[in-house]
Amino acid sequence: MTALDHFLDKNKNKEIVIVQGLGFVGAIMALVVANSKKPYAVIGVDLPNIKGKSKVRDINNGIFPIKSTDKKILKYYNKSLERGNFLATTQNDVYKYADIIIVDINLDVEKKYDLHRNLFNFQVNIEPFKKAMRIIAKSCKQNAFILIETTVPPGTTEKIIDPIFKEEFKKRRVKTHYKLAHSYERIMPGNNYINSIENYYRVYAGINKKSSLKAKKFLSSIIDTKTYPLTELKNTTSSEIAKVLENSFRAMNIAFIQEWTEFAENAKVNLYDIIDAIKKRDTHKNIMYPGLGVGGYCLTKDPLLASWASKNIFKGSILKNSVKAVSINDMMPMHTFKKINEYFHQKIAGKKFLFIGLSYLKNIGDTRSTPVELLFEKIKMNGGKIHLYDPLIEYWVEKKIKIDKKLDNFEKVKYDCIVLNTAHDKIRNNKKIIKLLIKNKKLVIDTNNILTENKITKIQKHVDLIIIGRGDIK
Amino acid sequence: MTALDHFLDKNKNKEIVIVQGLGFVGAIMALVVANSKKPYAVIGVDLPNIKGKSKVRDINNGIFPIKSTDKKILKYYNKSLERGNFLATTQNDVYKYADIIIVDINLDVEKKYDLHRNLFNFQVNIEPFKKAMRIIAKSCKQNAFILIETTVPPGTTEKIIDPIFKEEFKKRRVKTHYKLAHSYERIMPGNNYINSIENYYRVYAGINKKSSLKAKKFLSSIIDTKTYPLTELKNTTSSEIAKVLENSFRAMNIAFIQEWTEFAENAKVNLYDIIDAIKKRDTHKNIMYPGLGVGGYCLTKDPLLASWASKNIFKGSILKNSVKAVSINDMMPMHTFKKINEYFHQKIAGKKFLFIGLSYLKNIGDTRSTPVELLFEKIKMNGGKIHLYDPLIEYWVEKKIKIDKKLDNFEKVKYDCIVLNTAHDKIRNNKKIIKLLIKNKKLVIDTNNILTENKITKIQKHVDLIIIGRGDIK
Repeated sequence: MTALDHFLDKNKNKEIVIVQGLGFVGAIMALVVANSKKPYAVIGVDLPNIKGKSKVRDINNGIFPIKSTDKKILKYYNKSLERGNFLATTQNDVYKYADIIIVDINLDVEKKYDLHRNLFNFQVNIEPFKKAMRIIAKSCKQNAFILIETTVPPGTTEKIIDPIFKEEFKKRRVKTHYKLAHSYERIMPGNNYINSIENYYRVYAGINKKSSLKAKKFLSSIIDTKTYPLTELKNTTSSEIAKVLENSFRAMNIAFIQEWTEFAENAKVNLYDIIDAIKKRDTHKNIMYPGLGVGGYCLTKDPLLASWASKNIFKGSILKNSVKAVSINDMMPMHTFKKINEYFHQKIAGKKFLFIGLSYLKNIGDTRSTPVELLFEKIKMNGGKIHLYDPLIEYWVEKKIKIDKKLDNFEKVKYDCIVLNTAHDKIRNNKKIIKLLIKNKKLVIDTNNILTENKITKIQKHVDLIIIGRGDIK
Repeated sequence: MTALDHFLDKNKNKEIVIVQGLGFVGAIMALVVANSKKPYAVIGVDLPNIKGKSKVRDINNGIFPIKSTDKKILKYYNKSLERGNFLATTQNDVYKYADIIIVDINLDVEKKYDLHRNLFNFQVNIEPFKKAMRIIAKSCKQNAFILIETTVPPGTTEKIIDPIFKEEFKKRRVKTHYKLAHSYERIMPGNNYINSIENYYRVYAGINKKSSLKAKKFLSSIIDTKTYPLTELKNTTSSEIAKVLENSFRAMNIAFIQEWTEFAENAKVNLYDIIDAIKKRDTHKNIMYPGLGVGGYCLTKDPLLASWASKNIFKGSILKNSVKAVSINDMMPMHTFKKINEYFHQKIAGKKFLFIGLSYLKNIGDTRSTPVELLFEKIKMNGGKIHLYDPLIEYWVEKKIKIDKKLDNFEKVKYDCIVLNTAHDKIRNNKKIIKLLIKNKKLVIDTNNILTENKITKIQKHVDLIIIGRGDIK
């Protein structure tokens, strides 16, 4: 008897939910479903590559592969172990067992830049996603419920996934009794990782009445819909647009502030003060602060998915300004690089740099599309040497670089420039870092308003200080 | 004894406050100051042209020239009449009497468009503003307090106004004891006109310590600063940037939604539903709905003032994206025009149109930069005939056209197209309009989500219906 047989036998009275994709969304989603009030048994499926296999092995051996500050995660994982209702696998042939299939795999965009880091082209890689849908369609139960959570180009569920299911069901000579819906997550990694699923508003839509009803029923079983009522949209395209629109809105709000950052620096004023004054207005609470740049998986690509769909699925125009927002954000770290380059009179070769912070977001150890990467590359390219420190990261996956988590190890080197990148609490409240800056006595760049006013006063007499968005310093 | 002598004599124990400019801000500001807890006597100054003279005559003859739904306005005006502490004048030589001078005059931008309505150039007309400042500087008291409320290009107070005062004081051979500060209003015409001054957050900054203190003292005497604490910024440039930045943020948020409007129409979905779903998120509450376009005095020019200052005062770059936002907004009515033009197969000549709504904002009779104007011009230019109706407007000042406020008068004509422009309550809740649409039996265009769902159902069988941002209709 295999582990799978055993699992199915043990959970034979439960609805089987398969979560396809065990990344930052799927893995947590699997935990939430396994801990729902309803008796679900959850099978998590990932790819049979090194990363996927290692994740699956971990999950099945008592180790949850995603580290987070949210304590609920370990609690939920341990409960699922007790209950024996969570299994992970890289096997592709499990979909036949599922009553419900939740799709949480990636749908990636490949971006192309020119020498000045202008985004001049991009490619939506929809084929792997279509292939994954076909695998499900080939073997799923006739009346399975498939819930797409992946951020897809709007129109995908109706115009790409549904036809694949129709085609495969026809080949299988079975009636198209599957139910298909789209509902996107609004996950926030960090302290409220689990809560951002269970206790937050959700949008959903089905391809038909039966699918909508099923989506509603399922989502109500994992979300506190009394406090956070569901919003049903009229079709899956609407739900898909909602997702990319809300992320594009955010991307655009970040991009907006960049030219004002440069204006404020030039006019020698403190943009942070100005923004705080503006934030007093309810209508302006979400105006963004300056920074090094934008990272993560969503804001860096969702506007592109929308634009691609507008052109390729609906034969309309590209979304020029939303694409432009991504381009501005992707280029943002160049502003910090320019400041460094100017300071050293274009002579970066041989200079020693210490980067403090590598993650794209504070209090999370996540390097996906981190803006630190561009700054890193530009300095390397110009002959600078860089040491990296991040209290939350041991290994920079994308660059295959081991990160030293011990700050003490950086004390012996004399750096020409120390760059503060990420506003982790562990960086912000670390007195050792202030000591290090003062002892080092050279250029300090704060890219994310990490230094508080009294720390600025403290170090200002010992170092040269540049703070992004603050023309009032120096 | 002139009226002015009489006024000064009567109010000789009071601080004299002069408000320069009796427009949508100054006139209301004058009322607020005249009704403050502190014993101020207020002189409102306007230009000696036809408009200015008529305003001044009205104020001094018991008629307040600004119509509004805010009942506090008449109450405040009547109180000031009782107290005898509010006088209006077009005389330029009154500044010598003032202890405090509040500057609320315009600072205009002249825009230039190409044939496709692309904003390709603009001119900041700063000279009339400088002239007005010089008039004050030439005659004001040596220790007068001048508070700039006008939205100016950032840097103006410090780099343009202050030097004018220094120069004129030098000519006058008096010591520069004047106090100079910038503090911008966040006035909202409509039901809470007065409250939007008295009960709202304020930002201020002075050119030196004494000026800041004086600004704080004065603003605290007219604003409920206990509930709405003042925000002091470090210099007047910061305060000036804050104003244009908050309006640019809003202009950009409106511009952002335009390409999504077109995308949603093309994808045949209802963008209003989608936006409502997104607005559930606290971080996304201010995402904007589609519409005909943007009007009013601020959002249509403030980003340009910022860009102009960045380039001309601080010798930096233009604010490309903020200028672009204005351009997108200015062009927005072209989208509605395109829909009309397509419907009539480019044959608009001779067609009869009824425009319902002319104001740029709901529940206000204000035509300044109304987006209706471009639609009006385009249809006229193509040979269409237009009747205009707005329940809140009697006269279209900018176009010198009398407006018929009686809806009944439009019932006899057979229109080829009725355009709903402004979401006044008096338009939205008017059953007569629905009857008119049904009786007319032709094309109806709703540019601002004015028709509710049940009204749409009601009229849909009788008319052709186009709703901006709703691809799900028809």
